[in-house]
Amino acid sequence: MPHPRIASVVAVEPHPDDVEILCLGTLLKLKQEGTRLTIVCVTNGDKGSGNQPDLPYPEVAAMRFREASSVAAALGAEFINLGAEDEYLYDTPELRNALAAVFRRAKADVVLAPSPHCYQTDHTIASEIAFQAAHLSALPQLRITPPALPALPALPSAPAMYYYDTLPGLDFEPSFYVDISGQMARKQELARMHTSQMASMKSQSDWDLVEAIEVLGRMRGLQSGTRYAEAFRLCARYPRLKAWTQFPA
Amino acid sequence: MPHPRIASVVAVEPHPDDVEILCLGTLLKLKQEGTRLTIVCVTNGDKGSGNQPDLPYPEVAAMRFREASSVAAALGAEFINLGAEDEYLYDTPELRNALAAVFRRAKADVVLAPSPHCYQTDHTIASEIAFQAAHLSALPQLRITPPALPALPALPSAPAMYYYDTLPGLDFEPSFYVDISGQMARKQELARMHTSQMASMKSQSDWDLVEAIEVLGRMRGLQSGTRYAEAFRLCARYPRLKAWTQFPA
Amino acid sequence: MPHPRIASVVAVEPHPDDVEILCLGTLLKLKQEGTRLTIVCVTNGDKGSGNQPDLPYPEVAAMRFREASSVAAALGAEFINLGAEDEYLYDTPELRNALAAVFRRAKADVVLAPSPHCYQTDHTIASEIAFQAAHLSALPQLRITPPALPALPALPSAPAMYYYDTLPGLDFEPSFYVDISGQMARKQELARMHTSQMASMKSQSDWDLVEAIEVLGRMRGLQSGTRYAEAFRLCARYPRLKAWTQFPA
Amino acid sequence: MPHPRIASVVAVEPHPDDVEILCLGTLLKLKQEGTRLTIVCVTNGDKGSGNQPDLPYPEVAAMRFREASSVAAALGAEFINLGAEDEYLYDTPELRNALAAVFRRAKADVVLAPSPHCYQTDHTIASEIAFQAAHLSALPQLRITPPALPALPALPSAPAMYYYDTLPGLDFEPSFYVDISGQMARKQELARMHTSQMASMKSQSDWDLVEAIEVLGRMRGLQSGTRYAEAFRLCARYPRLKAWTQFPA
Amino acid sequence: MPHPRIASVVAVEPHPDDVEILCLGTLLKLKQEGTRLTIVCVTNGDKGSGNQPDLPYPEVAAMRFREASSVAAALGAEFINLGAEDEYLYDTPELRNALAAVFRRAKADVVLAPSPHCYQTDHTIASEIAFQAAHLSALPQLRITPPALPALPALPSAPAMYYYDTLPGLDFEPSFYVDISGQMARKQELARMHTSQMASMKSQSDWDLVEAIEVLGRMRGLQSGTRYAEAFRLCARYPRLKAWTQFPA
Amino acid sequence: MPHPRIASVVAVEPHPDDVEILCLGTLLKLKQEGTRLTIVCVTNGDKGSGNQPDLPYPEVAAMRFREASSVAAALGAEFINLGAEDEYLYDTPELRNALAAVFRRAKADVVLAPSPHCYQTDHTIASEIAFQAAHLSALPQLRITPPALPALPALPSAPAMYYYDTLPGLDFEPSFYVDISGQMARKQELARMHTSQMASMKSQSDWDLVEAIEVLGRMRGLQSGTRYAEAFRLCARYPRLKAWTQFPA
Repeated sequence: MPHPRIASVVAVEPHPDDVEILCLGTLLKLKQEGTRLTIVCVTNGDKGSGNQPDLPYPEVAAMRFREASSVAAALGAEFINLGAEDEYLYDTPELRNALAAVFRRAKADVVLAPSPHCYQTDHTIASEIAFQAAHLSALPQLRITPPALPALPALPSAPAMYYYDTLPGLDFEPSFYVDISGQMARKQELARMHTSQMASMKSQSDWDLVEAIEVLGRMRGLQSGTRYAEAFRLCARYPRLKAWTQFPA
Repeated sequence: MPHPRIASVVAVEPHPDDVEILCLGTLLKLKQEGTRLTIVCVTNGDKGSGNQPDLPYPEVAAMRFREASSVAAALGAEFINLGAEDEYLYDTPELRNALAAVFRRAKADVVLAPSPHCYQTDHTIASEIAFQAAHLSALPQLRITPPALPALPALPSAPAMYYYDTLPGLDFEPSFYVDISGQMARKQELARMHTSQMASMKSQSDWDLVEAIEVLGRMRGLQSGTRYAEAFRLCARYPRLKAWTQFPA
Repeated sequence: MPHPRIASVVAVEPHPDDVEILCLGTLLKLKQEGTRLTIVCVTNGDKGSGNQPDLPYPEVAAMRFREASSVAAALGAEFINLGAEDEYLYDTPELRNALAAVFRRAKADVVLAPSPHCYQTDHTIASEIAFQAAHLSALPQLRITPPALPALPALPSAPAMYYYDTLPGLDFEPSFYVDISGQMARKQELARMHTSQMASMKSQSDWDLVEAIEVLGRMRGLQSGTRYAEAFRLCARYPRLKAWTQFPA
Repeated sequence: MPHPRIASVVAVEPHPDDVEILCLGTLLKLKQEGTRLTIVCVTNGDKGSGNQPDLPYPEVAAMRFREASSVAAALGAEFINLGAEDEYLYDTPELRNALAAVFRRAKADVVLAPSPHCYQTDHTIASEIAFQAAHLSALPQLRITPPALPALPALPSAPAMYYYDTLPGLDFEPSFYVDISGQMARKQELARMHTSQMASMKSQSDWDLVEAIEVLGRMRGLQSGTRYAEAFRLCARYPRLKAWTQFPA
Repeated sequence: MPHPRIASVVAVEPHPDDVEILCLGTLLKLKQEGTRLTIVCVTNGDKGSGNQPDLPYPEVAAMRFREASSVAAALGAEFINLGAEDEYLYDTPELRNALAAVFRRAKADVVLAPSPHCYQTDHTIASEIAFQAAHLSALPQLRITPPALPALPALPSAPAMYYYDTLPGLDFEPSFYVDISGQMARKQELARMHTSQMASMKSQSDWDLVEAIEVLGRMRGLQSGTRYAEAFRLCARYPRLKAWTQFPA
Repeated sequence: MPHPRIASVVAVEPHPDDVEILCLGTLLKLKQEGTRLTIVCVTNGDKGSGNQPDLPYPEVAAMRFREASSVAAALGAEFINLGAEDEYLYDTPELRNALAAVFRRAKADVVLAPSPHCYQTDHTIASEIAFQAAHLSALPQLRITPPALPALPALPSAPAMYYYDTLPGLDFEPSFYVDISGQMARKQELARMHTSQMASMKSQSDWDLVEAIEVLGRMRGLQSGTRYAEAFRLCARYPRLKAWTQFPA
């Protein structure tokens, strides 16, 4: 596959597993076309142990890093964690620059980010950081030098940016749906590799990761005339908004 | 081109020239891929003579039919006029059925329609007729027999439906943009074939058809990172909403 | 149960089965409290035979009337059909009056109606008819005499009006959710009595009535912290909007 | 006052008294500047006798015509009634033309109309009729001949159109507020001339015309930093939307 | 009253008196049912001396603390002040944790918070802090230890969260209204105990606390068919959104 | 011109040139009436050198300060720069106070600010700072002392606040339009004085400052029935929302 339609996609997630729930089917589809995939997690997810409330935070972070890395490896994606503190994410210059550096290094054509209207503050803040980082990544005059690395050249233009669905489909008016009926089995299989989150979510609600994926995917499929789908929304702000070369289908 | 991505598109317009202003660039693009194109006009446009206010209505209708047919011929599209009275369009069973019959006969995969929030009532009513006709076209139990013709078989599923932009971009939040930079010159050339409307619009405002196309196209291009674009919005209602097979680009 | 919290509820549906899909769980719950229930269907549903496209329309209407009546009987509700033509519903004075007469006769405290933004025109028109009928039902100066019956006294005040969810949850921002986890089994059992629609829907899509109920109920449940829920929206227009006597829970 | 800023304003109301409740303060203000005022009522209001439910409809219509005429006379406005049936208003070609004829005859610069999202169907339909009539009034090729009168010349351009507030401020996001603190006393005095409606409204709710005016005016004043105000919304659709010559204050 | 319908409600306010203006009638109603009430104020309100601009800030804070405490005592609620600086509120980890600790200690079932679209930044920030704190309060793995106190156990599930109305009803689309006609006299009596704010507001506008309560309550009542009402909006985000056990009335 | 309708307007911009693109035509119009004009820029714009990416940041800031000052001088406005870092603007107490001090010193009647939904974070943050500063400027109890200056007296009431358009017209629903056809030539002439930005923008897109002004102005003109217009939106929040003394025209 020497020429994928979209060369490089970076998916930004607040915690390890958000991408798995909300847009993994689409990433699997893009991978089949040859798109380069990067998943970048903004926080360390160290509060994600609802079923084992007494686990030390650093152990939780380490466990989730291993799980997310395994999924990324199985998907054929690079996984990066920016290490901010779970549940207390703030929009800092350092995180904006770190994320813009990821976009530059990956030569991102497309950024997938959480919705600015999502279910907890880490999500909305991660969305805002991605929003500004997409802009910064294409400013040649902005010299971003990651620690111990030379400056990364700016992107020729800002990546197209899309918001993936919210959990569980609340306060989200999709711009479009992608059919993932053919990717659903694999999506659930990969999501199940988040062993800790399967248990943690179940302990805090009546559903686990894979059940949430099933219900949301089925609902978005019902809405859009197929078995399973994922929903997305344009970030309709210059310069992240890009006209498409084809009428979509 | 034996296998276009989208086999058949029907563009619905309230008056002869609306498609030219608002989505002709996209139709030109689809034509290049081999898509079958149909333009169906709901009214006869017989009030479209602002510059010659005393022209008898039937003459205006005839003149505009000739102009719209010429554009369609140059584009390689079929042109159909349903003949309702200009400025006094109402949603009738006959028009719903007539439009559903067009969708069936054209085996439409995609319907492009005016926005339900457009600048005059013929537009909003044409939008509503198209909305219900898209649904009716796929009901096998609904037997539509155009005058003097056998019953048309129902579509296997309702066509995907999208709204094209409003004139001039008011009360319209696009779901996506299509780059028509490569089609703009031809779009304007074809639009200019509406000689009567070039003069009529100019007499009622400070712009003519081609100037409106230029400003709106440039604005949508500026918004979406290209020279010229056209904007569309999902009709986000079952069963006209369809998941796409590809992530768009 | 001499004093139910809500004495009488009328649920308006465009076709026989809409109430079953979208608010039957809530009706079951109200029934348990002793609320008087009326289901009024606006069209005869005579196009609902997707799986048997050649069935004569009157046979379809008769079959669906039997099915809807059976469900209503099992629920303990009155069922009324206003007999308008399926797929071609228009807002007429006769239908407004007929519906207002139903509200008056049932002494409705609450009206449940389809959303004005639903998936086909019969739904949106039924919503508009119910909107005006709710107002008319409480005008003492409006003398409504159903055929062959004396005039019905006006309601002391317009019923509170709520929109039930859309199929399948599109273009609908809920004002609130009702937990129907305890009613779900019975809801599906009753819906299954629409034998014709179970088959008709399946033939036109990949789901049947009960699957749609399952997915939508599960999704609304996931959103609102329970197993299964139904979603509603205020009709926020005077005089259908009523302050509640209690903070809800 | 030879040169008022706005030469002629036409206020459209569904029933006799809507203008009094919702924009009379602004009309009083414009009158002081020398603006020509026309109030056109679309229905005959013959159902407006909540306190005397047995009054024959024609008597109600006649009584309300007298009341509305008196208010208009006191204001220095022309009053016209188009005579459609109260509670059963539909959008017909005849009413569109009749209203467009009023706009032409009054040489309207500005049209004030009910919101398309108002509390009963007569209001929303009157809003739609005014919407299309504003467009028709400026089409020179549309020849409108009122019964027994010569054709009226088209307006040079469509009047600017604004929606006045809803009763009671529901589903209405104002574009701007006009300070009517200095007009409030006179507004209430004139409204009180609707003797029948003072009694009719009181009999159907806990407020009468003047109380509603007081509460709504006070609320809009509180919102906009003054004692009493009226709220308006742009009709943001071509060609009814007009840039202003001055930044407002 | 051993079993109130709602066991514990926490109302969050940016400044001492916001709860009094915007939801005190509902709190009075809940109190009658036996609900445990807590009012938590985020800032110290030390800029609230418009009528005495030279008063030292600490004196203002002390005075307002006394006033708010008196109201709470009269209502039978606990009053807590988190002590952030008035007019300069920011979303910090400390405030999130402090507020989550209040929710945990009060075993909150329901949180009432300012709208995220309110009239000054302290309100929108307080809304955001409450939003995240509601989530944090139910994470067992999050160990919150208030100064000099043992860790508080997490709530079994996040409290249901609702936004109360804005001052003065701007940019707020209510999800529902609560009838407070029976509580209005007492609400105004309690509000009047904010002697300093009665004078401060009057000095900065043409209304005082009690006048604002009167106008807003009357307007919300007019909208919802009663004398006086308060308006609320769902926080429609997981896990703060809860299905109700009853259809509301 | 001893008595302009609006005595003093302050236009807030995130970077030097935003006012020029988005509301300079209106400022030119107000200047003709005798309004006192102040332009206050929040950041130093030191990243605005897309065409010369290696220019040291302080040089860029100095160059842009000169350009913006020249435009302001030619316009007859005061220019102030608050000096925050370009691309990394945050909402701090110092910036709130500095901006409120500008409003106080200019005795602002009207504040024009960027939209809270604009294309990059500096814009949305500048909008939020202006939002709170407008409120702070009218609190007599808030004692703002700019460095080395005595305390500035509070404004008698908060300035009216309006958002100017976004670049390029995205996510912005105008409340009103101002006709700038007569000001367009001068607007473009002044904008061209931003020599560095003419080149920098062109290097990052296919348009420069003046082309963007042309397209946006023409589009807003087409929408509002004139050649060129600028669009504004109310900040519909107390106390920045003010009723107007006149119906606008």
